[in-house]
Amino acid sequence: METAETTISQISKHKGEEVIIKGWIHNLRSSGSIHFLQIRDGSGFIQAVVEKSAVDTKVFKKAEKVTIETSVILTGIAKEDKRAPSGFELAVNNLEIIQIADEYPIGKKEHGPEFLFDNRHLWLRSQKQWAIQRIRNEIINAIYLHLNDEGFIKIDSPIFTPNAAEGTSTLFDVSYLPAWKEGEKEGPHVYLAQTGQLYIEAAIFAHGKVFDFGPTFRAEKSKTRRHLTEFWMMDAEMAWHDWRDNMKVQEKLTIAIIRRVLLKCKNELVLLERDLPSLEKILEGDFPVLTHEEAVKKLHSLGSDIKERDDLGADDETILTEQFDKPIFIEKYPKEVKAFYMKRDPKDDSRVLNNDMLAPGGYGEVIGGSERETDYDKLIERMKQEKLDPKEYEWYLDLRKYGSVPHSGFGIGLERYIRWICGLKHIRETIPFPRTLNRITP
Amino acid sequence: METAETTISQISKHKGEEVIIKGWIHNLRSSGSIHFLQIRDGSGFIQAVVEKSAVDTKVFKKAEKVTIETSVILTGIAKEDKRAPSGFELAVNNLEIIQIADEYPIGKKEHGPEFLFDNRHLWLRSQKQWAIQRIRNEIINAIYLHLNDEGFIKIDSPIFTPNAAEGTSTLFDVSYLPAWKEGEKEGPHVYLAQTGQLYIEAAIFAHGKVFDFGPTFRAEKSKTRRHLTEFWMMDAEMAWHDWRDNMKVQEKLTIAIIRRVLLKCKNELVLLERDLPSLEKILEGDFPVLTHEEAVKKLHSLGSDIKERDDLGADDETILTEQFDKPIFIEKYPKEVKAFYMKRDPKDDSRVLNNDMLAPGGYGEVIGGSERETDYDKLIERMKQEKLDPKEYEWYLDLRKYGSVPHSGFGIGLERYIRWICGLKHIRETIPFPRTLNRITP
Repeated sequence: METAETTISQISKHKGEEVIIKGWIHNLRSSGSIHFLQIRDGSGFIQAVVEKSAVDTKVFKKAEKVTIETSVILTGIAKEDKRAPSGFELAVNNLEIIQIADEYPIGKKEHGPEFLFDNRHLWLRSQKQWAIQRIRNEIINAIYLHLNDEGFIKIDSPIFTPNAAEGTSTLFDVSYLPAWKEGEKEGPHVYLAQTGQLYIEAAIFAHGKVFDFGPTFRAEKSKTRRHLTEFWMMDAEMAWHDWRDNMKVQEKLTIAIIRRVLLKCKNELVLLERDLPSLEKILEGDFPVLTHEEAVKKLHSLGSDIKERDDLGADDETILTEQFDKPIFIEKYPKEVKAFYMKRDPKDDSRVLNNDMLAPGGYGEVIGGSERETDYDKLIERMKQEKLDPKEYEWYLDLRKYGSVPHSGFGIGLERYIRWICGLKHIRETIPFPRTLNRITP
Repeated sequence: METAETTISQISKHKGEEVIIKGWIHNLRSSGSIHFLQIRDGSGFIQAVVEKSAVDTKVFKKAEKVTIETSVILTGIAKEDKRAPSGFELAVNNLEIIQIADEYPIGKKEHGPEFLFDNRHLWLRSQKQWAIQRIRNEIINAIYLHLNDEGFIKIDSPIFTPNAAEGTSTLFDVSYLPAWKEGEKEGPHVYLAQTGQLYIEAAIFAHGKVFDFGPTFRAEKSKTRRHLTEFWMMDAEMAWHDWRDNMKVQEKLTIAIIRRVLLKCKNELVLLERDLPSLEKILEGDFPVLTHEEAVKKLHSLGSDIKERDDLGADDETILTEQFDKPIFIEKYPKEVKAFYMKRDPKDDSRVLNNDMLAPGGYGEVIGGSERETDYDKLIERMKQEKLDPKEYEWYLDLRKYGSVPHSGFGIGLERYIRWICGLKHIRETIPFPRTLNRITP
């Protein structure tokens, strides 16, 4: 029988057989007569043992030469080993070196974050960074699969936009060459979209339930643990949903995401030392709902000096969510701290039918949503208050003229979500190549 | 029993029952005593019949008042009707008007493309545009599902990049405020990425097989049927794959995509008058492979004046692919017409181990791929020829120092792919909100 090529994640299918594994030397140590090679192949990690007494002299000599990150093709027996994370160990029969790696800059000593981010292209190979990207991948998969099951259609919203839906101070400006008219030096400028929401609102009239999922851009001056200039957002929008239905959709999606991550990435969560019961708890559902007014009262009792009609600051969100073991919804914020398109509460015209979803344990806001204003005049009034020119939003206002329906939607900040699920301090580690106001490489 | 709310796509589960459908009046006609309302609810289209003799006078009067695009909630009996595309018709018992639509600007008369794109936010509701977006959605789903099955991990590549991997002439320039150093007026400029490929190459060393899928930007001056300034690309990259393996992956993915679209969107393809047998044919696989040299010879015999070492132009691709009923791979292009990172053919150092995949029937290039150069010195040589500064690519060159492996990858232009699958003349209809050098709204 020909020796089968396999991956570390599939090795249990080949118990006792000879297999071929292609990968890299993740780490190594030697006792003189035995080389212990920790092998990484993308799917997982396994220990490969090269015993002097068991292999050809040439093979053993090759094993002496390998360095950390050397690329290799190994042939060996898949031996069960209950202590190993993969449940297996590879008893090497043959070893082929593809390229001997230069001395690897990321060693065992502690490196500062700047050094690690300067070497992000290599740091991605480390076990924790590997685990984070695997979890990121499954969160993305869970979103697609769940929304697909629920009848949503993906509608890609544009990045180039002439509109400034959430204010202009944090917009990136792109000169959009060439000139459109003779005599002009350059064409019109465009902004990089900060949300696709207005665009996908247009699509609910064609498709009912829609979502987008793509990068968004914010020239965010705050250098906090929670800010990137480039990050991924998923916006969902549903016809015939009020703000309460909207929260139910968010809760159901959150449960679907956590269920899949627990199913597919338990090892990765363990690697990150994430507390599993605290994630499992969330599968129960029934996330608490507080009004903004109640949240402010609670914050006062916790020592915050938040004002009655303030937005919740990052610190407020932290101290509040440390009190809960499930995500919480905060609804009905004062209208002046939220976007113009949010529907006014019929019971209190000074507030809107919105919600933020805050993650427990101090992680803060991960979702923001609302029912959308359908009243044409109220929209115009709020636009003017926000110094937006209704002429630029004529197409959006059209949606209230041609078959307006009650509708709601929400946006998930992917990196904030990952930070929460992975239990990370800094958001920068959640994205393969982070961009901040002082980092644009590698 | 309470009347069930359902969608048009699910109505067959309620044969003979009373159901509630929420939607819009897509079209209407009346015989005086019967109103025929074509209803759209996002999931599909159905005819609703309001018969004077069968309903309350008030209900019939409401049906008289509705206009095209009016939003309604209908209650009625799901009656089987074999002639209807949905297989059903709704015999209306009750009709609730949510909003009477103003006179709808997109009427039955022919509109020019500029008018339609100016009203893209409304035009998306038309049946063909609806079908195109549904197919787009399933192509996206098929890509995620297939790559996930094959063990790929999504690695989101950054949009902001200081590098210019495919030349600078078509790059968008973003001023990245604020200044980094005292005394500077503004911070460094960044470009909007045209491909994530270099970045995802870094990730194969951590994950083996990876992909990205996001918007890319090209300040493309050519106003052709095939160009947008903002479009979506999926890049895949695989360790341990040579250029032949690479073509196999592309063929398998193409078959998976077409199989899913045929399974999920047959009605939509029929609406677009797409020739189904020509798509089914592709499921056979065995896509022909021609070398660039062979392709040039064939083009000469077809009357093209392409030069021996020219890239294939759009016209060449059209006349060549009109000759085939399956996608074709063209491999081994002259190195000077392709990017610096493509691996040189060991049998002919003047050519590279690349491929383009051209769609049959004149649609031209939809995928481009290659094995990647692993030889450090050859990479530097090609960078210099392309006037790229190796210093800016140090991180990329690192990948050849620390465990270099043979690897390959490819990129799919999503909108070109959709244009082909849907059988459309212009690429602009494939994306919800197209951006070209002279369109940035709505």
